[in-house]
Amino acid sequence: MNHDIHVLDCYVKQFLSRITCNGKAMDMGTTTKALRMLDFFSLTGPEIGLSQMTRLTGYNKATALRLLTELVEYGLVEQDSDTKQYRLGSAVLRLAHLRESSFPTRTVARPFMKDCVEQSGECCHLALLDGFHLNTIAVEDSSAHSTRVVIDAAVRLPLHATASGLAVTAFGSQALREWVQTEKLEQFTSSTIVDPAKLEPVLERVRTTGLAESPDGFEIEVHGIAAPLFDAKGLAIGSIAIATPSSRMNEELRQRIYAILLNASANITRAWGGSFPASFRQHIQT
Amino acid sequence: MNHDIHVLDCYVKQFLSRITCNGKAMDMGTTTKALRMLDFFSLTGPEIGLSQMTRLTGYNKATALRLLTELVEYGLVEQDSDTKQYRLGSAVLRLAHLRESSFPTRTVARPFMKDCVEQSGECCHLALLDGFHLNTIAVEDSSAHSTRVVIDAAVRLPLHATASGLAVTAFGSQALREWVQTEKLEQFTSSTIVDPAKLEPVLERVRTTGLAESPDGFEIEVHGIAAPLFDAKGLAIGSIAIATPSSRMNEELRQRIYAILLNASANITRAWGGSFPASFRQHIQT
Repeated sequence: MNHDIHVLDCYVKQFLSRITCNGKAMDMGTTTKALRMLDFFSLTGPEIGLSQMTRLTGYNKATALRLLTELVEYGLVEQDSDTKQYRLGSAVLRLAHLRESSFPTRTVARPFMKDCVEQSGECCHLALLDGFHLNTIAVEDSSAHSTRVVIDAAVRLPLHATASGLAVTAFGSQALREWVQTEKLEQFTSSTIVDPAKLEPVLERVRTTGLAESPDGFEIEVHGIAAPLFDAKGLAIGSIAIATPSSRMNEELRQRIYAILLNASANITRAWGGSFPASFRQHIQT
Repeated sequence: MNHDIHVLDCYVKQFLSRITCNGKAMDMGTTTKALRMLDFFSLTGPEIGLSQMTRLTGYNKATALRLLTELVEYGLVEQDSDTKQYRLGSAVLRLAHLRESSFPTRTVARPFMKDCVEQSGECCHLALLDGFHLNTIAVEDSSAHSTRVVIDAAVRLPLHATASGLAVTAFGSQALREWVQTEKLEQFTSSTIVDPAKLEPVLERVRTTGLAESPDGFEIEVHGIAAPLFDAKGLAIGSIAIATPSSRMNEELRQRIYAILLNASANITRAWGGSFPASFRQHIQT
């Protein structure tokens, strides 16, 4: 009996240690936990130490180190040999290079983005849909003005709070539109629309005009205008947007940007081999 | 007693189910298992179905699906809605964009690569070290000849079998040099040097000339010449290389490529804020 109890005790301890070791993995996949770490790197914080990563993720230090080590092993993250801080690794360049060589979305869009910048004198950015997230994948800056919007590289754009997000949602899949209607929407500024009932007429207007507009919705003082980009089935999979300081926006500039973006949207969609849904076709100048 | 046995039995079953559930995760981290899948995408096979991925990885179908789902969830992989095949996702573009915005290695090197192509009439590629792997992160093609070497985007270059690998190893860290001496080296062609004793004099020659050369070492008919690129501590962290069809290589072209690469290596290293080790400094034309 004593022996049994001892064995039982050992099993309990081993079992508990495994539960503890796997911890939150019951709720979130280990890979997801590891990849989530990548999102804490930003243009303003490109290097992160272990303690800081532990704080940011809420993982315990051993877990954070184990997951970081796996990311380093693969090359998605690298560690500075001097400072011991972590940063995005060169494998992301290799993978992006391969993705662009097989599916050259960014390369193909780049010249049209440059046209947008030249014609508007403002910053232009390209975003691609990835599930219910919208990823910024390219930014072209303008040097026409000394005050300008600087888009943080690689920022994820909320669907309800940015012009890019609204453009994609309005012309996106049924699943995407339902997601925005049922998801709890985050309030970024006092101008962010978070009420689904108020969002619907905004999306309807986007469908009517072919363009989305978000004055100060994501960041105060940033006025974004965006047009959708379509895949071969006529579903919006990305957006091209121009962002200006709100103080510079006026009716003349707005109309100019509208024309520039509708033109760029049509050109990039065609270059990607996409097709336009009937609801957008009316906006294309042939 | 019966009760205790029952409890013990339950614990054993639960514990065993967890071991089985985690399975091979005991040998290889789950994240590593998931990320390994990314390496099966290539320029010739940019899309992979679930069955094929199961075959390629040797994981069982449920595991492959679960890991792929996590990669899709993050956006490293995306699934074509029509064919259900998987391909690299747009998150790699977002991450590469961020990495290049914070540490613009590729962007900075690009104009020097273009110079190499223009001056040599051959294909130029840039690789960055990531642990004991060398990742191709940029390729510039030449259209000067109708027969040319085409470098597969995103290929990993073996350290012992490519000019790029030899250049980095010769001027790399002690750990890297030891790794090449102790690792089982893969034979790619009949010209690949796999004997560590034969590799050492080759690396010594690289240090003497500042340049590495690998005729047909990785692929038959491809003649690679490479120069190292250095970090701030004077350790090689990458390479710039020119690849020509072996049939075109002659002494005049070789000497021209030598000069072009030493010049490019010095320029890119300076642009990256790197410094040259004493063993390389003699090769720099000031």
